[in-house]
Amino acid sequence: MRSIAICAPATPLKRVWADEVLAIAETEFPSLELHFHDQCFIEDGHFAGNDAVRLSALLDCADDPQFDAVWFAKGGYGSNRIAGEFFGRMGEAARRKTYFGYSDLGTLLGGLYRAGIGHAVHSPMPVDIMREGGADAIRRVLRWFSGDRDGLEPGLTGAPAAAFNLYTLAMMAGTEFMPTLAGHEVLVEEVGEYEYAIDRLFFHVTAHLRDVAGLRLGQVTAVPENDRPFGAGVEDIARYWCDKRGLEYLGRAEIGHTSANRIVPFGLEADAGRR
Amino acid sequence: MRSIAICAPATPLKRVWADEVLAIAETEFPSLELHFHDQCFIEDGHFAGNDAVRLSALLDCADDPQFDAVWFAKGGYGSNRIAGEFFGRMGEAARRKTYFGYSDLGTLLGGLYRAGIGHAVHSPMPVDIMREGGADAIRRVLRWFSGDRDGLEPGLTGAPAAAFNLYTLAMMAGTEFMPTLAGHEVLVEEVGEYEYAIDRLFFHVTAHLRDVAGLRLGQVTAVPENDRPFGAGVEDIARYWCDKRGLEYLGRAEIGHTSANRIVPFGLEADAGRR
Repeated sequence: MRSIAICAPATPLKRVWADEVLAIAETEFPSLELHFHDQCFIEDGHFAGNDAVRLSALLDCADDPQFDAVWFAKGGYGSNRIAGEFFGRMGEAARRKTYFGYSDLGTLLGGLYRAGIGHAVHSPMPVDIMREGGADAIRRVLRWFSGDRDGLEPGLTGAPAAAFNLYTLAMMAGTEFMPTLAGHEVLVEEVGEYEYAIDRLFFHVTAHLRDVAGLRLGQVTAVPENDRPFGAGVEDIARYWCDKRGLEYLGRAEIGHTSANRIVPFGLEADAGRR
Repeated sequence: MRSIAICAPATPLKRVWADEVLAIAETEFPSLELHFHDQCFIEDGHFAGNDAVRLSALLDCADDPQFDAVWFAKGGYGSNRIAGEFFGRMGEAARRKTYFGYSDLGTLLGGLYRAGIGHAVHSPMPVDIMREGGADAIRRVLRWFSGDRDGLEPGLTGAPAAAFNLYTLAMMAGTEFMPTLAGHEVLVEEVGEYEYAIDRLFFHVTAHLRDVAGLRLGQVTAVPENDRPFGAGVEDIARYWCDKRGLEYLGRAEIGHTSANRIVPFGLEADAGRR
């Protein structure tokens, strides 16, 4: 991959973060060309432009054959509102690309994977530059674009895999975007949810994942303090629901809403980054 | 209904609220007998006792033929963790009872309705006594127990109906407790969720309700203020997703996490309260 288009199907990116990402790319990865679509910076209520604006920018990036890949700028919420129209209208060039992102963008990655369109890759996003250690997260993706696989999530076994934000996966389950994950190792991570809410999400998600090879738990960060202790930690919760549903709990994973977030190509394509 | 057993399959009730409910019942509804199970008051981390304790109390109430109905004391989260075991172990007496509650208890009501066990009724709960106007919410249920139907949700048309907290319904969808709601008018309400989260829940729930007669929106209260405006109100959100999924939006409903919460017998049983 040489030329990467960046758009924001959910919420807007601040231009200062794009500039920092561009500075790293220009200095350290001169063979890469990053193209931030202006739509990344539009603020319209919650979203980076209304549905039509975000869809149009996504199609601009995906349908243009000069770009090898599409990198999503930021999550936050909203890609599910345009995913159906995107899959319905995309052209041939869009079907050969690799798509990178995580969190809310799991809906687009899941939908792509379900439809067998292009390649879906869980990875850090430009917005992660703002985190402590964020430059390393960005370098991890830029190295991957350059053909270097050292950012790969280290626990991947060779079984087909997929990685999602837990809440995003829960909301996608049963919708037209949910991929078949039979036989997959499914990695989940979460941020900013109460433990009782995480328990409730596991109740739901494990009901929709009865035929997977197993579940791995990524980082669960920024858990708010509730008015009383839940009485169990997040790994206890994951084990509880895996036991209850007869799923294999496969231990921890190095994904999450932190700069340590590693790369997980969906399916058997641990080498998708080389395409 | 004369004799009503009360337990807490999710989180604990403070004894002071039980005492206030009992005082109203004794003074104004002398023909009713309310029995608060001691389990209502157990505090164990998040829950009103661990799973085994809550299940045991629920079975005590449901299986005892001296009780005509089971009234859930309080929601909060947790009835889904014991619902499967409850349905698996309940005896004959439990299958003839009517069950009252809302919010998190929607999982039990939904599971009962799915299995055709007893009767499920969305109604205020003892914990609602603590709200402004809460005594009226309690009286509404006590009148219903006494055979008076004036607490019925006023917009029910005679089509089969069901009422749920939106998040609870979202988490139940696709699980072993989700009832078939084909042809039903489905009433949903929400409390304490951001507008973007409500939008996301509608995305999910409308995908699981494609064959319903339509959706009605109850009260949506205590919406937290986000770092930026969402750009659409809750009714706009409901309409957006109903339009997108080809569902009928049927307007507002008088249910919610307030003392105005009205009574909705599941199915065609608007007279279930008379049994």
